[in-house]
Amino acid sequence: MSRIRVHNLLVSLDGFAAGPDQSQSAPMGVGGERLSAWFWETHVGRSMIGQSGGSTGIDNDWLERADKNVGATVMGRNMFGPIRGEWPDDSWVGWWGDEPPYHHPVFVLTHHARGDLSMAGGTTFHFVTDGLDSALQRAVEAAQGKDVRLGGGVATVREALRRGLVDEIDIAIVPTLLGSGERIWDDLGTWPEGYVCTQIQSSDSVVHLQFCRA
Amino acid sequence: MSRIRVHNLLVSLDGFAAGPDQSQSAPMGVGGERLSAWFWETHVGRSMIGQSGGSTGIDNDWLERADKNVGATVMGRNMFGPIRGEWPDDSWVGWWGDEPPYHHPVFVLTHHARGDLSMAGGTTFHFVTDGLDSALQRAVEAAQGKDVRLGGGVATVREALRRGLVDEIDIAIVPTLLGSGERIWDDLGTWPEGYVCTQIQSSDSVVHLQFCRA
Repeated sequence: MSRIRVHNLLVSLDGFAAGPDQSQSAPMGVGGERLSAWFWETHVGRSMIGQSGGSTGIDNDWLERADKNVGATVMGRNMFGPIRGEWPDDSWVGWWGDEPPYHHPVFVLTHHARGDLSMAGGTTFHFVTDGLDSALQRAVEAAQGKDVRLGGGVATVREALRRGLVDEIDIAIVPTLLGSGERIWDDLGTWPEGYVCTQIQSSDSVVHLQFCRA
Repeated sequence: MSRIRVHNLLVSLDGFAAGPDQSQSAPMGVGGERLSAWFWETHVGRSMIGQSGGSTGIDNDWLERADKNVGATVMGRNMFGPIRGEWPDDSWVGWWGDEPPYHHPVFVLTHHARGDLSMAGGTTFHFVTDGLDSALQRAVEAAQGKDVRLGGGVATVREALRRGLVDEIDIAIVPTLLGSGERIWDDLGTWPEGYVCTQIQSSDSVVHLQFCRA
């Protein structure tokens, strides 16, 4: 049976998973690049922008794990792009260039309908207007027995955690403060009640924690 | 020259270093015992309540480090006891019984004067009514070349961090949410600007991070 997994959710010491004022030039909000700096040092990060090299080891291992046995992805609209409101046209095709690194169906939560978008390398974006449950259901079907990755953004992951829809979540704590932005932990009550912290591992710059449904 | 050090500051994933409603029966506030559960499993923790055994290893090492080369301690009043306002009498002598685990001068920040309190084992509590700077200055003198430990509570540490008075802070992140209580990271702007994260180490249950002044 498909599991719903969240991987490498970047969180600051003060609990922010994105800075304020997300935009095309600041996809993770103002200051959010301090959360992701370590990512671009890894082999997985370098590969994503067509570069070779980069670190292997703990951080890279956690990034690679995120792609294992994943058959579909669900993401919020902010994760897909900086556009808010109606789609002005179909020119925005995601942050990732012509060949997004998914290679499977991706379900984008939005209030604004748009036709399917097929990209090179096997990624097709489907725009889902009837909510998270519908997106997860369609993703599970599309995953054909593999797992579904819930890719973000912050609000989507928080809703899924609050409603107990997540089977596994791996977070990456970056030892810095953002001071403002989107908090991931608000309104989650006594979480991780119902979950067990199954692994803690730290590199020189990031703390990785894995929680699985108890 | 004496350094000002904070050790093993317990912090939840959502940034709380104490739960709400601190009292004599809940010294770390409601739910705060979830932050300190690991402490009582260690050798240092067991020793503090007169028990033998307890774990050695990573968590215990970080606890032991806190006592090395410390000649005096400064703490906020909530760290000394649950009493608020005027001292009703001199009967409250701290949370630690007849022989507190300090064995050196301890400077307690309070708005309410009280005479010095000498305990068994070499601990003397001095009650300081003229603020953090005065307490730190007196502690540095009393430490006679050794370091000064800033023991808490949350508000005191936050003030010291905000004002850049701390040379080293070791925090212990416990993978749980408190949801409410005293936030340690509020109003600290771009901290750890001016500091370097010098060590990250995790046990099975706690993440230890060390920050030193750059």
